[in-house]
Amino acid sequence: MSAVEQQLESIHQQIVNELPRDISVSAVTYEGPELVVYTRDPKKFAEKGDLVRKLASKLRKRITVRPDPDVLTRPNDAEAAIREVIPEEAGITDLDFHEDTGEVVIEAAKPGLVIGRHGSTLREITQRVGWTPEVVRTPPIESATVRNVRNYLKQEREERRAILERVGRQIHRRELSDEDWVRITTLGCCREVGRASFVLSTPETRILVDCGDKPGSEKEVPYLQVPEGLGGGANTIDAVVLTHAHLDHSAFVPLLFKYGYDGPIYTTEPSRDLMGLLTLDYLDVAAKEGRTPPYESEMVREAIKHTFPLQYGDVTDIAPDVKLTFHNAGHILGSSVAHFHIGDGLYNVAFSGDIHYEDTRLFNGAVNDFPRVETLVLESTYGGRNDYQTDQEDSERKLVQLINETHDRGGIVVIPAFAVGRSQEIMLVLEEAIRTGKIPEMPVHLDGMIWEATAIHTTYPEYLRDDLRNRIFHEDENPFLAEFFNHIDGGEEEREAVRDAGPSVILSTSGMITGGPIMSWLEHLGSEPNNTLIFVGYQAQGTLGRRIQSGWDEIPMTDNGRTKTLTLKLNVETVDGFSGHADRQGLENFVKTMNPRPEKVLCVHGDERSVQDLSSALYHKYKMRTFAPKNLETFRFR
Amino acid sequence: MSAVEQQLESIHQQIVNELPRDISVSAVTYEGPELVVYTRDPKKFAEKGDLVRKLASKLRKRITVRPDPDVLTRPNDAEAAIREVIPEEAGITDLDFHEDTGEVVIEAAKPGLVIGRHGSTLREITQRVGWTPEVVRTPPIESATVRNVRNYLKQEREERRAILERVGRQIHRRELSDEDWVRITTLGCCREVGRASFVLSTPETRILVDCGDKPGSEKEVPYLQVPEGLGGGANTIDAVVLTHAHLDHSAFVPLLFKYGYDGPIYTTEPSRDLMGLLTLDYLDVAAKEGRTPPYESEMVREAIKHTFPLQYGDVTDIAPDVKLTFHNAGHILGSSVAHFHIGDGLYNVAFSGDIHYEDTRLFNGAVNDFPRVETLVLESTYGGRNDYQTDQEDSERKLVQLINETHDRGGIVVIPAFAVGRSQEIMLVLEEAIRTGKIPEMPVHLDGMIWEATAIHTTYPEYLRDDLRNRIFHEDENPFLAEFFNHIDGGEEEREAVRDAGPSVILSTSGMITGGPIMSWLEHLGSEPNNTLIFVGYQAQGTLGRRIQSGWDEIPMTDNGRTKTLTLKLNVETVDGFSGHADRQGLENFVKTMNPRPEKVLCVHGDERSVQDLSSALYHKYKMRTFAPKNLETFRFR
Repeated sequence: MSAVEQQLESIHQQIVNELPRDISVSAVTYEGPELVVYTRDPKKFAEKGDLVRKLASKLRKRITVRPDPDVLTRPNDAEAAIREVIPEEAGITDLDFHEDTGEVVIEAAKPGLVIGRHGSTLREITQRVGWTPEVVRTPPIESATVRNVRNYLKQEREERRAILERVGRQIHRRELSDEDWVRITTLGCCREVGRASFVLSTPETRILVDCGDKPGSEKEVPYLQVPEGLGGGANTIDAVVLTHAHLDHSAFVPLLFKYGYDGPIYTTEPSRDLMGLLTLDYLDVAAKEGRTPPYESEMVREAIKHTFPLQYGDVTDIAPDVKLTFHNAGHILGSSVAHFHIGDGLYNVAFSGDIHYEDTRLFNGAVNDFPRVETLVLESTYGGRNDYQTDQEDSERKLVQLINETHDRGGIVVIPAFAVGRSQEIMLVLEEAIRTGKIPEMPVHLDGMIWEATAIHTTYPEYLRDDLRNRIFHEDENPFLAEFFNHIDGGEEEREAVRDAGPSVILSTSGMITGGPIMSWLEHLGSEPNNTLIFVGYQAQGTLGRRIQSGWDEIPMTDNGRTKTLTLKLNVETVDGFSGHADRQGLENFVKTMNPRPEKVLCVHGDERSVQDLSSALYHKYKMRTFAPKNLETFRFR
Repeated sequence: MSAVEQQLESIHQQIVNELPRDISVSAVTYEGPELVVYTRDPKKFAEKGDLVRKLASKLRKRITVRPDPDVLTRPNDAEAAIREVIPEEAGITDLDFHEDTGEVVIEAAKPGLVIGRHGSTLREITQRVGWTPEVVRTPPIESATVRNVRNYLKQEREERRAILERVGRQIHRRELSDEDWVRITTLGCCREVGRASFVLSTPETRILVDCGDKPGSEKEVPYLQVPEGLGGGANTIDAVVLTHAHLDHSAFVPLLFKYGYDGPIYTTEPSRDLMGLLTLDYLDVAAKEGRTPPYESEMVREAIKHTFPLQYGDVTDIAPDVKLTFHNAGHILGSSVAHFHIGDGLYNVAFSGDIHYEDTRLFNGAVNDFPRVETLVLESTYGGRNDYQTDQEDSERKLVQLINETHDRGGIVVIPAFAVGRSQEIMLVLEEAIRTGKIPEMPVHLDGMIWEATAIHTTYPEYLRDDLRNRIFHEDENPFLAEFFNHIDGGEEEREAVRDAGPSVILSTSGMITGGPIMSWLEHLGSEPNNTLIFVGYQAQGTLGRRIQSGWDEIPMTDNGRTKTLTLKLNVETVDGFSGHADRQGLENFVKTMNPRPEKVLCVHGDERSVQDLSSALYHKYKMRTFAPKNLETFRFR
């Protein structure tokens, strides 16, 4: 009997002892971080509301109870019963029975009504039909990504369960080492922005945190090939943790599966879906630009299949000696600060990922309150001594003013924007401005991946800012569903119609004018002096966006293979203050108010000057030990 | 054709172009770091004295010229001719012909006379017989170790040549990476004394520097198992560099071969022989103490077979992007500062190994003059703020006085001493004191491995201090051959005779009274108040030596399995100042006078307090960036 089996055997016995005698336990097994308890008495389990909670707290494990397959009501009968229990207003859009696990996935427009007060409706379902209900939200805007991911996971359910069991045994394996140490190895994003990648290691466990590309520099990839990276094979790491879905953190996560990795990815559910969206687009762009994509779309599916989604605040065992907890990072949908508790009280490390410290319209500000944390790995994108951004209120005022001016002279506003995060922030600004009459009602067109990214946002309102979430949950005032938002899905023909239809606002990718539909918009709108182009995001060195921003007005365009020159006559404006990153003040505030204050800070994810400035400032102001690591270094903390 | 073959082909052509037309080149190949040129005209080569030197400087490679086998004089005839050319006084003790390489190994008491002025005699030999002479010294004291090593290498000559060719191709392989970086990973001896081990790595090359044990703590071994150590397999390292033979630097070098390593070890010739002596003894001690030795004696032989001995000052290619040069470290016989030149002027790192900065009787002080060096990895054994040692002259005066006092009351002096280094230093003090009449002539007995270690010292006088070497070379005044030195080789019977024979001095292992013949001497001499026990070396925590030094006089002894108590009545004295390590002042002087002064210093090989003190002092006094690394960290320098 292996150590894991012995452990399960002993847990089985413990559970039997804890439960009332009339509740049977037919099997106990691990699925990923969770302990799954099979019973022939699911209904009795469901009757005693807090039995599972008590067990979980006693065993210090996350517990799922499943009925033995042969005590389940037949699906047809069960469906009828379920539809009877759940109120009509919940808006069930799908019911899916999985006989292997005894779970029924209920997709509904209002998951809260399916769950009921403190889960009462769910318990009632189990009491009546035996099945374990799992609730997912019907996306208010139909998202192809979410639909595809859910269908794919349904289809791969059996293999996924095998993965869950295998990983479960890995997580709960016996610790082998009697040594204690905690180390971080830097594989990227040190003294640079891009290719985020770290290894967090203990004598037992190696965890890869992020694995991104470097925008504008295809050749500079994370140093995976070194021995302390994946040099010894992709399966020398036990887990991948993804802080958020932006490509400079996620682009090479699917590549790991090409290298033979078959372990878990921990991230939030929206990050999983956005990673799917963005990496597939990444492959698309590479192919269109004639580059060989580093992996195939099949690898994106592998990544999705191996993802174990976690919610903010869930403390999850991901290795015998490591517990992971995600906290809201305020940067984009599903973005997380990843907190690692290592050993039994031995050490705590938090990776900030990318953060925004103050609340934005979309998200609450980043969480900086932890039970314990000795070392913080902190992004430093705007860590330079002069990296202060305009106040968002001022920025919004300026944006509104520019739109009004353009509208008044009959022109069209075009805003290049990143599909994920900044577009939705601007949508919220525009929605409020139109709703409150600060700008006249006019169409706001969304082109490129923006619509799809927005659809994913509306699927996961619980990841949005409190009051925004409440509007979506309780008041049926989902701002993303405002009528004046129009999804450009009619190609060039629709774009031409928009050009000729009078004042409007267009949000279009790519955010740095490096390709995508924004190129068409420039052609359609560039020569008309009444129109306005407004930059709302960072324009990197070497991008066409940066050139236009700094005054270029002769733009080379490719038309059916021929190169021609486009002369820009429209107004070009910049409104900053909409960044998804904390500025220098925000970074300092994040650290200053952090509870508890960490002993050590590694300043990463910023150019050389930014990390040095921030590291030096934090050292002098707060007397912490600070570092500005280089790539390929290893720091030991214990 | 492989890249190496193409390269050899082009070098072949270059050599043909450089040589006079009447000298043929039949083949060109690599053997380890050397380029071997085969010729059918060895005699003509030998006629033009500086042809090889010119070629070497032109090609920037170490070059060996070998005759084609079929142009060689037959061994019998050649031997007669060689004995005719070499003067009688050279004292030839062996001639050994290797037909595969065309080399003849000449063992002689006076190698200088075999070599002749600027190598003239060697050239004459080649001119007459075609063979390439290689000269080794007849050990003035017969050393079983040296004899065994030489016989073993002779016997394994063919496999060794295969190793040389394989490693030669590895060294001269084409560089694959277009990146530049230089890193040091700490696998041991950080914030502790013992288990020295580092990995020096570039994108091309990984070099293990030292691999030792931790005295008094068998379980604490270097962190070889981590991925950036040997986690990816023993052959993920390209070369092993051994700074010196003490076990805390060498004990686990043979273990690497058990792990499957089959690459080269670079060290000096005496370090190779001493490593053989000390690691075999290490296995012996482990077996006697009932521990399972970590490897078998066969692995020691493998290590010796894979050793490429280098001389001080030889600049040697050990990888496509790394040149290694050893410099005298002044610590023990053959001990080296290892200087690495990386890339073509990219970066330079020096590992001090263990050093003694001032001259001692045995050795010149450590070299600290380099073409370039940006980072120094510095031992810190005596780096603490109060780690100043007594001046050696005062120490010698005190030792002489104690011996005289003991002699005058008819007693015997017994000195526990480490076999390698300290024993020979004390022998030199005693030899001079007796020769100059400072102490009366009396026998000096050498027990344990001291005699054998001394024999190895006399085999390599070129590694000893200038004036000592000159005495041995030119004046036939080898102090180690003084008549009053007596090798205890008659066991207990002889020891009893010594006990009863009146005043004498005994040097015996082990140096910290942890076993060995010193235990017998304590029994024989311990109860006589006229005798004196003198400590001349560091006594580690937990050793019997440390206890006796601090006043214990009831000593538990094992006699035929029974434990009895020995009451010590003899005088116990300590004379410090004979350490093989630089003291705090010596370490500072080494850095202060270093040319050029390094930018960064890593303070290692000292306890926590010592490395912190030294690191802080060097930073404040000399404005260098200094570090006190932990084990398992990686520093990047470029």
